Amino acid sequence: MAAAAVWRRGAAWLRSCRANRELPGVPRARGCAGSREVVPTCERYAVRRLPFARLADGDVAFFERLMPGRVITGEEEVKPFNVDWLKSVRGCSQLVLKPQTTAEVSQILRYCHERNLAVNPQGGNTGLVGGSVPVFDEIILSTALMNKIISFDKVSGILVCQAGCVLERLSEYLEEQGFIMPLDLGAKGSCHIGGNVATNAGGLRLLRYGSLRGTVLGLQVVLADGSALDCLTSLRKDNTGYDLKQLFIGSEGTLGVITAVSILCPQRPKAVNVAFLGCQSFAKVLETFTTCRAMLGEILSAYEFMDEKCMELVETHLKLSSPVADSPFYVLIETSGSNSTHDEEKLHNFLEQAMASGLVTDGTVATDKKKIKVLWSLRERITEALTHEGYVYKYDISLPVGKLYDLVTDMRARLGQSAKNVVGYGHLGDGNLHLNITAESYSHSLLEAIEPFVYEWTARCSGSISAEHGLGFKKRHFIHYSKPHEAVLLMQQFKAMLDPKGILNPYKTLPSAPDGSTC
Amino acid sequence: MAAAAVWRRGAAWLRSCRANRELPGVPRARGCAGSREVVPTCERYAVRRLPFARLADGDVAFFERLMPGRVITGEEEVKPFNVDWLKSVRGCSQLVLKPQTTAEVSQILRYCHERNLAVNPQGGNTGLVGGSVPVFDEIILSTALMNKIISFDKVSGILVCQAGCVLERLSEYLEEQGFIMPLDLGAKGSCHIGGNVATNAGGLRLLRYGSLRGTVLGLQVVLADGSALDCLTSLRKDNTGYDLKQLFIGSEGTLGVITAVSILCPQRPKAVNVAFLGCQSFAKVLETFTTCRAMLGEILSAYEFMDEKCMELVETHLKLSSPVADSPFYVLIETSGSNSTHDEEKLHNFLEQAMASGLVTDGTVATDKKKIKVLWSLRERITEALTHEGYVYKYDISLPVGKLYDLVTDMRARLGQSAKNVVGYGHLGDGNLHLNITAESYSHSLLEAIEPFVYEWTARCSGSISAEHGLGFKKRHFIHYSKPHEAVLLMQQFKAMLDPKGILNPYKTLPSAPDGSTC
Repeated sequence: MAAAAVWRRGAAWLRSCRANRELPGVPRARGCAGSREVVPTCERYAVRRLPFARLADGDVAFFERLMPGRVITGEEEVKPFNVDWLKSVRGCSQLVLKPQTTAEVSQILRYCHERNLAVNPQGGNTGLVGGSVPVFDEIILSTALMNKIISFDKVSGILVCQAGCVLERLSEYLEEQGFIMPLDLGAKGSCHIGGNVATNAGGLRLLRYGSLRGTVLGLQVVLADGSALDCLTSLRKDNTGYDLKQLFIGSEGTLGVITAVSILCPQRPKAVNVAFLGCQSFAKVLETFTTCRAMLGEILSAYEFMDEKCMELVETHLKLSSPVADSPFYVLIETSGSNSTHDEEKLHNFLEQAMASGLVTDGTVATDKKKIKVLWSLRERITEALTHEGYVYKYDISLPVGKLYDLVTDMRARLGQSAKNVVGYGHLGDGNLHLNITAESYSHSLLEAIEPFVYEWTARCSGSISAEHGLGFKKRHFIHYSKPHEAVLLMQQFKAMLDPKGILNPYKTLPSAPDGSTC
Repeated sequence: MAAAAVWRRGAAWLRSCRANRELPGVPRARGCAGSREVVPTCERYAVRRLPFARLADGDVAFFERLMPGRVITGEEEVKPFNVDWLKSVRGCSQLVLKPQTTAEVSQILRYCHERNLAVNPQGGNTGLVGGSVPVFDEIILSTALMNKIISFDKVSGILVCQAGCVLERLSEYLEEQGFIMPLDLGAKGSCHIGGNVATNAGGLRLLRYGSLRGTVLGLQVVLADGSALDCLTSLRKDNTGYDLKQLFIGSEGTLGVITAVSILCPQRPKAVNVAFLGCQSFAKVLETFTTCRAMLGEILSAYEFMDEKCMELVETHLKLSSPVADSPFYVLIETSGSNSTHDEEKLHNFLEQAMASGLVTDGTVATDKKKIKVLWSLRERITEALTHEGYVYKYDISLPVGKLYDLVTDMRARLGQSAKNVVGYGHLGDGNLHLNITAESYSHSLLEAIEPFVYEWTARCSGSISAEHGLGFKKRHFIHYSKPHEAVLLMQQFKAMLDPKGILNPYKTLPSAPDGSTC
């Protein structure tokens, strides 16, 4: 019962998150994420707490009985779960639960549903749109202890595991078996596969292995009322009725809690090569893409780009050094294949043509694992380098590939000196731009210069305002820039059907209704 | 108004489909699909007509005004739309509508919804589970005239087209642009892309390019009440809210009518090779698969198998001849790549090893288009050859690949002389077996020997009772062998939400509720 006594200490802090009557989703002009202490989300953003029940002594006692030793309370202990990786949003939860099984998740949700307690499912807490932390006092349901590999079939390459397995651990496990995960991303060291699926993570291998919508074969999900839905099949093909699991992929924990995943894993390529190249213009980045796609064909596994500002940032903040001569743009090309001689020949032919035709001015190629990692880190660690800049306004945009960099140029011209840096990088092969704008600290006027301009620009090109990061808390009110009204209404109907009390990850993904609810 | 006069002629015929009070989904022991005339579904199967409105003069007049000249009535004219390709089920519709635009589909459904008239969406009518034809007098909404290509982007490879485009026409169009469709199947000459998406068609390229759940980027769908849902985006990545289009992929026209499709198309491979091999046992077929997957890696684009009975059937009924020595099993391997020298070298190395190690006893390789087509036709035309046998009991099963052929062996032993032939073939690389049992004519006792045995066998191996064909009319009552009760309940909730009157493709996909409805 000690825990029950401790959680009460946080209650005063929670109450200080004052109730709000302003328009939902409009950030207030105060607070600063660049400062030491992250401003609570409910203070920075005008969002109203929905009428969920508040945590009581009896609730904590119930959970302590259900899973002794796996109930975390106390302001300091809970704090890391309340703040996102970017340190841009902060919830006021007083309770973290760490179930180990689907049955426990089921019991937790059944109880919360009955008590009308809101729940924030949390994986590795590496999300970038504020979807993974509470907004108010939602109970945090962490998948951290659901980290067992259930089975792996070496013939089919199908892995079945619990939702809390860390992506990098799974990758290491599979590599030993001669396979790889079909997705890879910068946050691999922390992110959970359940969170990856819940956010439909894209990442670095999508170009080659496709999206999780194709590679995830089955899911085990607990619904808001605690009922478990077992669709954890291990079949490449199954056309028996509607594909329910798809609704949970990318629903950011708002429709159900994913507890286990079945996923199709490709064979580990026998040969991997990485080329890091400098290009003199974005037009040449595009032409290099077309050329390499034609010449590398089926062995192309990544085509990433970054601008010179990105390179400056990783050099300055992370002390990494560029392996090629200074260029306005850099391209990272990865090949993965089954025959190193063939792959090297293809890559060599491509590079020869790219250099001869002036598409590329300088480049380096790596075939050994260590050098490959060094080259990849230049691209993968941009997000980290950006956090050293102060406050970062992050945008994750899908656009027709030809227009991808125009948004960066336009934004740079628009913001002028008011931004510290405007940088562009991303998964060019997937038409996915990461546009990042930095400033010493959060500024409301800078935000107003960026938004809704960035969304209107994207909508004019029929792009997506969130390619792979999701909408979470920060972007949910902008969904209309990428989805028609009828689609949003239908989503709200699905939410209302699957989670009638709205207890699952409230204030996320869908825009608020006039009463503040998402359905 | 001539049409309105004509449709009435069919009314007597419809009324002869007597109302039924037996258990739903249990076929009656009479009728014979092998005979000239197909027995109406409502006579062969114990299914009760739901209380939809019956077509009236005013309805036909309304449609005639809406789309003059594209309203088909009259028993003979409507007949081809009432009978499925296998000639195994026959509806009693009196009206076929051929809209050209999404707006027209919208108007049709709005009207039908208001009038409570049931609708059977129909593409190329090549389905194998009775999902594409009416069961009673549902109005047939044919996508045949919605056959326009809307756009194709050569940089991204994204094709946007209307739902009624024939798959083969799309393939031909793309080939000229240096691309291919991500799916290919035997029925390509007739099937519509909208039907492919509505049934989540698998086919011959899934092994390489993945399922439609990954390659379909956007859909335009008209819901049961006539409202149009425009999610026809052309983006590889879009994480703004729930992925609604997934619900319509594979829903067999029961949740909405797909009117347009946006799909990601791979580049046309520069080199294609096909090897046709003979194996002495199924164990060797499996070992050959493991070996070729390792040695051919990223260029492997199909791994199909067929047993000797299949070869006999294509030889007997289609006068095709085997290119290799008689063997218990045959394997067709296709490679698709960007460098013919590399591909041929890989294939050569693999074949050398396969022959040397005794995995394969005889084989032939084709590199030119014509010979490739000849080899493919041996595999692709098995379905057609089977139709010459009389009545065909078709099963499309997903199983762990190691157990794939055990079901054929067990079934053969079980049925003995009561079946004419028990054959197995399919997409081994996807764990997908096509089990076909033939008899001179339909026999209820033979059916009872096959079912539920085949489904129970599959369920014991955690397989799927429909890998790629869907459930349609014939398999809907067997969904419980592959999906848990909670999942089916949830599907029924989705159906009730999206189509509260149940007018869209009734009697399909989901099992009947006690009142005969699917929701």
